[in-house]
Amino acid sequence: MTTKVYTGASMSLDGYISGPDETGFDKLFTWYGNGDVTVGTTHPELTFRLTGVSAAHWHRTVRETGALVVGRKLFDLTGGWGGDHPMGVPVVVVTHSVPDGWPREGAPFHFVTEGVEKAVALARELAGAQGRHVVVNAGTIARQCLEAGLVDEVGIDLVPVLLGGGTPFFPDLTGAPYELEGPVSVAEGKNVTHLRYRVRYARDV
Amino acid sequence: MTTKVYTGASMSLDGYISGPDETGFDKLFTWYGNGDVTVGTTHPELTFRLTGVSAAHWHRTVRETGALVVGRKLFDLTGGWGGDHPMGVPVVVVTHSVPDGWPREGAPFHFVTEGVEKAVALARELAGAQGRHVVVNAGTIARQCLEAGLVDEVGIDLVPVLLGGGTPFFPDLTGAPYELEGPVSVAEGKNVTHLRYRVRYARDV
Repeated sequence: MTTKVYTGASMSLDGYISGPDETGFDKLFTWYGNGDVTVGTTHPELTFRLTGVSAAHWHRTVRETGALVVGRKLFDLTGGWGGDHPMGVPVVVVTHSVPDGWPREGAPFHFVTEGVEKAVALARELAGAQGRHVVVNAGTIARQCLEAGLVDEVGIDLVPVLLGGGTPFFPDLTGAPYELEGPVSVAEGKNVTHLRYRVRYARDV
Repeated sequence: MTTKVYTGASMSLDGYISGPDETGFDKLFTWYGNGDVTVGTTHPELTFRLTGVSAAHWHRTVRETGALVVGRKLFDLTGGWGGDHPMGVPVVVVTHSVPDGWPREGAPFHFVTEGVEKAVALARELAGAQGRHVVVNAGTIARQCLEAGLVDEVGIDLVPVLLGGGTPFFPDLTGAPYELEGPVSVAEGKNVTHLRYRVRYARDV
């Protein structure tokens, strides 16, 4: 099995993964709570209520994900997820400097200060050892990975809202246009369409 | 029948209806030429080669459209479509001043200088008389109509390309978030997903 690199996020119809000043999450994440299938995470207090379609999508994502690559901003914002990411997988944090008190015994967080390529390489090892794939966080990290030719598939949970501004899925993207193939899968949830696309880099043509 | 107001366009995954400096149309409009169903327009030299799915989508759009509302920029860019829009329907142009030499005898172009609400009202009359609907052009006109509470449905022909910049479907949108319902229809073409959403204004809730 070749370990692949995926990125995915809930995105508004106008292309934003968060609205102006970090708003809009109530709209973007409606689908995590609008169904009747209860889905647990490694955090006892964090459960979702998904439709059957969205639950299948979620389970597939969890099953495939062997390691995450995230930026320092998200790590700080979530307080390092209290030392344990809800997906229960190793997390590689791209950062300029290792935060105080980290790494910690037993907490599967890794810190890479040499950029996204090194971070993805480490995440590939961690995920590959489990026969799974790497998921990189949408936003700056996904953009850097896309520009570096590292992203194999893009998952978009397309939400019917217009946010009018905020953070794009691939902010400040250079080297465009990037062509994708697909969608290679489409699943219609409630207030969300789960779409997956394959990235086609010039080298593939 | 109530005459409705639609807007629609080919849009990149990052939300643009044209790329930087009016580029990207080759990518956005690939689906107009990647099938084996030949579809004619009122212009003998303009034909499309659509997949069966996209041809059905196109025919539905043509069948439903009774009048178009466009901005002066598009009117000038296309040279007034040589006096006859390819969809063969009346066109209402929103402009600050009526262009020289217009209106012309026999050419179904109307010029409205009092803003989008008046333009849409005129287009409603023209479309309603045929039992059809109004289509407003994506971009500034669609944005103004959305802000004015005039848009009933948004059609997005979602194309798997990232353009990294350009003209958004609803540029400089204010009053967000706008919530939509759906997609009320999804049709999978080749290199395009035809999506339709209903706009849900606060007044409807």
